[in-house]
Amino acid sequence: MNLAELQTPALVVDAERLEANLLAMSTALPGARLRPHVKAHKCTALARRQAEKGHRSFTCATVREMVGLAEAGLGEDLLLANEVVDPARLRALAELDARVTVAVDSEETIVAAARAGLREVLVDVNVGLPRCGCMPDDAPRLADRARKEGLEVRGVMGYEGHVVGNPDRAAREKGCEESMTKLLEAHAGVGGDVISAGGTGTYDCNRWATEIQAGSYALMDTAYDKLELPLQQALSLWCTVISVAEKFTVADGGLKSLGMDHGDPTLPGARVWFCSDEHVTFAPEEPLRVGDHVRLIPAHVDPTVAYHEKLHLVSGERVVDVWDVDLRGW
Amino acid sequence: MNLAELQTPALVVDAERLEANLLAMSTALPGARLRPHVKAHKCTALARRQAEKGHRSFTCATVREMVGLAEAGLGEDLLLANEVVDPARLRALAELDARVTVAVDSEETIVAAARAGLREVLVDVNVGLPRCGCMPDDAPRLADRARKEGLEVRGVMGYEGHVVGNPDRAAREKGCEESMTKLLEAHAGVGGDVISAGGTGTYDCNRWATEIQAGSYALMDTAYDKLELPLQQALSLWCTVISVAEKFTVADGGLKSLGMDHGDPTLPGARVWFCSDEHVTFAPEEPLRVGDHVRLIPAHVDPTVAYHEKLHLVSGERVVDVWDVDLRGW
Repeated sequence: MNLAELQTPALVVDAERLEANLLAMSTALPGARLRPHVKAHKCTALARRQAEKGHRSFTCATVREMVGLAEAGLGEDLLLANEVVDPARLRALAELDARVTVAVDSEETIVAAARAGLREVLVDVNVGLPRCGCMPDDAPRLADRARKEGLEVRGVMGYEGHVVGNPDRAAREKGCEESMTKLLEAHAGVGGDVISAGGTGTYDCNRWATEIQAGSYALMDTAYDKLELPLQQALSLWCTVISVAEKFTVADGGLKSLGMDHGDPTLPGARVWFCSDEHVTFAPEEPLRVGDHVRLIPAHVDPTVAYHEKLHLVSGERVVDVWDVDLRGW
Repeated sequence: MNLAELQTPALVVDAERLEANLLAMSTALPGARLRPHVKAHKCTALARRQAEKGHRSFTCATVREMVGLAEAGLGEDLLLANEVVDPARLRALAELDARVTVAVDSEETIVAAARAGLREVLVDVNVGLPRCGCMPDDAPRLADRARKEGLEVRGVMGYEGHVVGNPDRAAREKGCEESMTKLLEAHAGVGGDVISAGGTGTYDCNRWATEIQAGSYALMDTAYDKLELPLQQALSLWCTVISVAEKFTVADGGLKSLGMDHGDPTLPGARVWFCSDEHVTFAPEEPLRVGDHVRLIPAHVDPTVAYHEKLHLVSGERVVDVWDVDLRGW
């Protein structure tokens, strides 16, 4: 099939750019040095590509991502880098044919994990991002508590999410070091082999973590593109021009096909005015006609992919593969 | 099942409030005076409730919504209020066991509709929102063109989307009148029985349209709530508290369960700090504990619902029904 025949809007992945991104990352962080975060793509076919590049441990944000990877035979070492207290869902994780580790940051999450029959945990540490994670100096106490519940504490994790998007590289590196100082302080009192942290924005400067949880690197978006990393925009939304007025043009991608928390998508050669549910209104530099196609670059890859059922792998004008976004939902 | 047993995050619909909203609207705009827009809920079960209230004609934004309603037996009078030029998709519409009308605003869309075997169209008119729609004075020419192609022109449509969200009621009414003046001007030269326009924000002041395309009224969101309409917030995102720190608390709803183009969700009794992919960080007025539940009110109903597989209908603490969001995608 050719790109022009695709039903729109369609998420399109440039096969060569994806391959280049996977290769760049597996060269920088070979094997277990990278624990790819699947939340960015929610696609077992893409996770399999990452495994083929040598990364056989994965990071997940949801139970469904964990279950899906295990069922796809990718369950060698799965980390749920998020807190869950639902007993039924934790039991489902414990019953997977996979090595399962979950993040804990409180007595409640430790007790819930132990009661559900889970065996391995990481202590999740707040390293500056106001989200989950205990205070660094509370981590040893929680590790002891987990061990008393019979859990194996593999180490610590802490995500410097307040730092990864800083376009000033020096500030990003400094922020990363400050966060990792906290994480290492926690790790000193917790023990274990694993210090899990990082993301696409800090993969090449976080030298303290034993493994990096980058996910967006495979597909990229306009937010991460500002960091000038050696990674390329591989994801775009393929749209059809459906209406042409004197001062603006309209295509069929919008709020239900694009994550909008980082703002409007980008359209090379045009100025985007705004998005509606199923439309983007823009002013192109060169006139377009009804039926022409355009490629929007999403501002934020993760919530964009979560709207779609398929990723269309494209080489030039040819659609070479279609992958299910099979890890959506919770 | 009780609300407390729901897997989170879960979209929850207050059954009494939904019923009150449906009743308020069917009283204000009985029968064919309302053509409910299903894009807001993407749910044939909810559309069926609207049909039971007397509205048997529907508005859709996507081909999949049209096909889904037809297959659910709700195809008495379906309007695709959007431009489509894909021949295969238009043929699929022409083959539905349903009365199908599509919007056209250009020669290209007229020719595509005629070639696909479609029979009825509305001329889509730009009434001030820079999106689809021809200029009002071009509408008669396009109507003639459509008739030459053998199409039945049922009338005009024009959405005053730049007006519907204005919280100043007088300004909203004035803007609506200006838009409808343009639409009536177009209609005078086009003919036909149908003047289709409006939305939840103008349903009670647009007295020029023969039918109103409101959709959000059934579930509502914080954006429309600012208009002080006699409609109630019926939709919320039911979340579990997963982490509690000294200054903030974290629950498991985020960017992948909430449309974010209108900003952060609202949490009564708390100040929302920010959302991440699967988290919301907030400062509650009263302390919460891990495992407690909270209800986020989405800022924008349409792109929120599009992330979810199910709507859970709730009466008090009881889950009384579960509806598939079966019209997602395109």
